[in-house]
Amino acid sequence: MSSSSISHAAGAHSLTGLPAQAVIREVGLRDGLQSIQTLVSTARKCEWIADAFAAGQCEIEVGSFVPPRLLPQLADTAELLAFARALPALKASVLVPNLKGAERAIEGGAHLMILPLSASHAHSLANLRKTPDEVVDEMKRIRAARDAAGSATLIEGGVGTAFGCTIQGEVKTSEVLRLMQALLDAGADRVSLADTVGYADPHSVRQLFEQALHIAGDRFCCGHFHDTRGLALANVYAALEVGVTRFDASLAGIGGCPHAPGASGNAATEDLAFMLQACGVSTGVDIQQLLALRAKVVSWMPGEPTHGALWRAGLPRTAPAALPH
Amino acid sequence: MSSSSISHAAGAHSLTGLPAQAVIREVGLRDGLQSIQTLVSTARKCEWIADAFAAGQCEIEVGSFVPPRLLPQLADTAELLAFARALPALKASVLVPNLKGAERAIEGGAHLMILPLSASHAHSLANLRKTPDEVVDEMKRIRAARDAAGSATLIEGGVGTAFGCTIQGEVKTSEVLRLMQALLDAGADRVSLADTVGYADPHSVRQLFEQALHIAGDRFCCGHFHDTRGLALANVYAALEVGVTRFDASLAGIGGCPHAPGASGNAATEDLAFMLQACGVSTGVDIQQLLALRAKVVSWMPGEPTHGALWRAGLPRTAPAALPH
Repeated sequence: MSSSSISHAAGAHSLTGLPAQAVIREVGLRDGLQSIQTLVSTARKCEWIADAFAAGQCEIEVGSFVPPRLLPQLADTAELLAFARALPALKASVLVPNLKGAERAIEGGAHLMILPLSASHAHSLANLRKTPDEVVDEMKRIRAARDAAGSATLIEGGVGTAFGCTIQGEVKTSEVLRLMQALLDAGADRVSLADTVGYADPHSVRQLFEQALHIAGDRFCCGHFHDTRGLALANVYAALEVGVTRFDASLAGIGGCPHAPGASGNAATEDLAFMLQACGVSTGVDIQQLLALRAKVVSWMPGEPTHGALWRAGLPRTAPAALPH
Repeated sequence: MSSSSISHAAGAHSLTGLPAQAVIREVGLRDGLQSIQTLVSTARKCEWIADAFAAGQCEIEVGSFVPPRLLPQLADTAELLAFARALPALKASVLVPNLKGAERAIEGGAHLMILPLSASHAHSLANLRKTPDEVVDEMKRIRAARDAAGSATLIEGGVGTAFGCTIQGEVKTSEVLRLMQALLDAGADRVSLADTVGYADPHSVRQLFEQALHIAGDRFCCGHFHDTRGLALANVYAALEVGVTRFDASLAGIGGCPHAPGASGNAATEDLAFMLQACGVSTGVDIQQLLALRAKVVSWMPGEPTHGALWRAGLPRTAPAALPH
């Protein structure tokens, strides 16, 4: 698959000055479930995927190819990938920590695999047991393996702790951008930025994402924000203003980070969908269906912390009717 | 007091493109406490005011001159105003629903009184038992009384339900702006806009506030956002980008609206202070002191819903040291 088939990060702009449409990539099944104690059954995860797809979510990260002893919650990733692939037009992605995981993603026919790199040296060692530059080397091996297999699986390099880190503190912008460029040079089809620990603010987002788009152009594909300090949606809005059109989110804001004490999860999918559509940015998502799915998923994990605001208040009386899809 | 002494809404801009500084006006003692069951004692409210002032908050709405039978939680507003006036340089404001309330504000020497007007005809009748234009007439009487008394109390006209209403649904932008102009014509020293029921989104905020600033210039003074659907901070950021430099907020996000089912409170003061300072916008507030005050205030109201995210996660390791004040 050539790079020309990659979805553009900076799409057509509407009359509002914001992008006309944006994609919400659901990461609750990976980033969400890996951070909670409850084990959700494979059957229920398939129900989640099917319902999310029916609600209009067309990109879903179904799991992570990590050793099951490290993350037993995600041990069924291969089965979920097979299930998701059978849904027409659903783009199923997986996280891969290394070449071995990438080989499983290629074998399973994932649409996309995401190799995370932590721009914080200290976080990288704690989380991946590799330096950031060792992860860049792994990207080269993954690209070679993908090409050798004649696989159509796209490769995304996700630069995390892009706004700082709970272990190291400051992470220099120059280092974030150097590693993003290194991932592209090493063969990533596209790159993304993640505020892994909730240190970002909208002004920093605007500055860093402008530079990232300048470097990566339409190979810059996604923003990933944790809501640890309540700024996830403000950060999305700031990224949207500079032209980013894909955002990771987790239904009910489920999640956190094992190396980020007190972290809450990603931006809540349902709140993000509401904000985007209220701003006139089409997502293709039916928010009422998403709220129904949220209630079901939350019922599967009693006692787990969940987040978000829209589920309590409901849509405004002024909300446009749900979009057909 | 001439209008030239009014603080400017659109202040000096920093190198970041955002305003160099902004004021967080604490409304938890009014908008917050009026919406909860717990009665907080006058002594504790004074402690709240003193601690907030010590933490760098220089503008506090201490209460509302409404009949005590309607809002017994705010029956001690006159005492709180006297207490707040004794703190040097603290600007104490009160909400006044009508001329009678305004006379008490003038008598008590408030720095500022805020007359709320609901741009939604239906909400106005339900909440104030007056049409919006009858409130404009009340503004004329209040201005005449203020001038006749030779009082220095400033008058703010606060246009609420500016983004829609739970009763009426849509509220036309043209009507919001017409009423804002009418309040200025009727003698308001300054005007503000409120998303009373949490219907705003950052794009609508940007559009409406740009027009409001165009109409009112430096007599436009404040944005007031409820976090009902999780967008309060994104809305503040959008207003900040067009040059608004004063925002209402409630410690711990306490509050709601009696006519807005499911509404949560205002933007949480501590989260807003964090966002502004992280964006390089100076607020003069010591966030650690604010978090300590938050813990105390929350302990006074067991079982009441409170909000916000920063209190759980704490400041990032990368946060600049607290500002001296």
